[in-house]
Amino acid sequence: MIFSVTVLGCNSAIPTLTRNPSAHLLNANERFFLFDCAEGTQLQLRRYKIRFQRISRIFISHLHGDHYYGLIGLLTSFHLLGRKDPLDLYGHPLLKQILDIQLEASQTRLIYPIRFHEIGTGYELLHEDDILTVHSFPVIHSVPTCGFIVREKEKERKIRKDKIARLNIPVEAMPGLKRGMDFTDSMGHIHLNKELTIDPPRPRSYVYCGDTSYTESIIPYIKDCNLLYHEATFMQDMVASAHEKKHSTAAEAATIALKAGAGKLLIGHYSARYDNLQPLLEEAKKIFPETYLAEEGKTYKIPDSLF
Amino acid sequence: MIFSVTVLGCNSAIPTLTRNPSAHLLNANERFFLFDCAEGTQLQLRRYKIRFQRISRIFISHLHGDHYYGLIGLLTSFHLLGRKDPLDLYGHPLLKQILDIQLEASQTRLIYPIRFHEIGTGYELLHEDDILTVHSFPVIHSVPTCGFIVREKEKERKIRKDKIARLNIPVEAMPGLKRGMDFTDSMGHIHLNKELTIDPPRPRSYVYCGDTSYTESIIPYIKDCNLLYHEATFMQDMVASAHEKKHSTAAEAATIALKAGAGKLLIGHYSARYDNLQPLLEEAKKIFPETYLAEEGKTYKIPDSLF
Repeated sequence: MIFSVTVLGCNSAIPTLTRNPSAHLLNANERFFLFDCAEGTQLQLRRYKIRFQRISRIFISHLHGDHYYGLIGLLTSFHLLGRKDPLDLYGHPLLKQILDIQLEASQTRLIYPIRFHEIGTGYELLHEDDILTVHSFPVIHSVPTCGFIVREKEKERKIRKDKIARLNIPVEAMPGLKRGMDFTDSMGHIHLNKELTIDPPRPRSYVYCGDTSYTESIIPYIKDCNLLYHEATFMQDMVASAHEKKHSTAAEAATIALKAGAGKLLIGHYSARYDNLQPLLEEAKKIFPETYLAEEGKTYKIPDSLF
Repeated sequence: MIFSVTVLGCNSAIPTLTRNPSAHLLNANERFFLFDCAEGTQLQLRRYKIRFQRISRIFISHLHGDHYYGLIGLLTSFHLLGRKDPLDLYGHPLLKQILDIQLEASQTRLIYPIRFHEIGTGYELLHEDDILTVHSFPVIHSVPTCGFIVREKEKERKIRKDKIARLNIPVEAMPGLKRGMDFTDSMGHIHLNKELTIDPPRPRSYVYCGDTSYTESIIPYIKDCNLLYHEATFMQDMVASAHEKKHSTAAEAATIALKAGAGKLLIGHYSARYDNLQPLLEEAKKIFPETYLAEEGKTYKIPDSLF
């Protein structure tokens, strides 16, 4: 099953000609979820040839412009391009007012439905379907902000076809086997599930933590995640500035990844002061070697659990 | 004196990788005024190496997204980049609410003042300084919309230095001469102004007409303008669609230019259906030969009056 994230923006604060602000596109088995939507995100989707009408859910972490100023334009383009499918939108209650007043001003009645879901600042289940869940969790920032964690559900056990054929197990027994049940044959013999099936891949998880101060309070929520995206606006020599602005350094992001037992760490939300991002990467890797730089247009496959 | 306009966006409706929606930057003697501000305008300013903090006034013609979705991002970037100078902003009353709610949501107090000026839908003087005036005028569109006309003021007459030296005319007399007064010398002889000065260049004018149905009602306002920018969303074979959507065709824009006695016509706001713009240009030129295509990044000098 595909479980990957494409970075559409990795800059903080201001769009530049080389780096756009925050937006991540998750592809979970061809379900496309957008996390944040800075100005220019719709152009980034075009640039990377992503069919953006396939986006079914958009999650906005907070109402700083570099995380949502592109939303109204994307929603309008959906409309102008003839979207029919509903869109689920998750954000702070004010976000709905901001969108509504703009749609009202342009006398636009969208031709597709938006289902708006208010986000508080706690740990909340935002979405659940047959293959995954999405929760918000609290972070520390200068306005109400949350992170998001997407977790695959436990997958079904995999049938060992060789055994099934040999024992002549009927089709009706398969769903039970996949769920871990033993099988009792017509002679009354019990065949243990672990002999008939093999372990499925472990569920994977992706964390989006777009803007936050260093805070270990997030660790219980993100523990053992496979891919942690954690902002790293500054390097450690600017830690005072990072704290003042409620942002993190590369070293701090790596420390969180280490303490949370993350599989891999993706850093981003770089201050425009850093043309060369290698020093941020090196700083983080000293603490957490499995660190990667968020780069626009690049897709990161979320690896199977290492545990 | 510089009097030129740089096109930052020439598409209608939706930003694409090759064309951005509406924004025009006027340079009037190093005073920079922005007309409309679609999503991505701040990036366009960067792309064309325009120092955007020099923009002192922004005029928003109406509240369709392709004319203003980039405004909040630009205003925020001004702030983040340390602007101190006040900004004069002209738009529909709802625009202020739209900006205020977004600034409130991000708990942003801009470090520079914005002076917001409400625009109605009539012919109004919006701005006047020592060298020019800006008026709004009514157009016909699906939401309250106006056009803008920028007119240079009458310039002072130019002194003929050869005559001044020969007649030994004192410095104190110069301002009067520049305003057209005759000069009486110490012997009581009257020297006619027209012998001592030459005609100044005629004042020029630029019209921005971003979204409108074909309407001859605008002609009295824009009569004899030097450069008319008039939208031309469609070609004449789609005139029904143009009327329905309250837009114009290239032929219609040219007809307005002809009837208004414009010096030159700039067309733009092209429908995304036109990859090749030459047919729109040709259609307009058949009616009004002095037609030019609005192309992004290109600067159009506003010519002296032809009359």
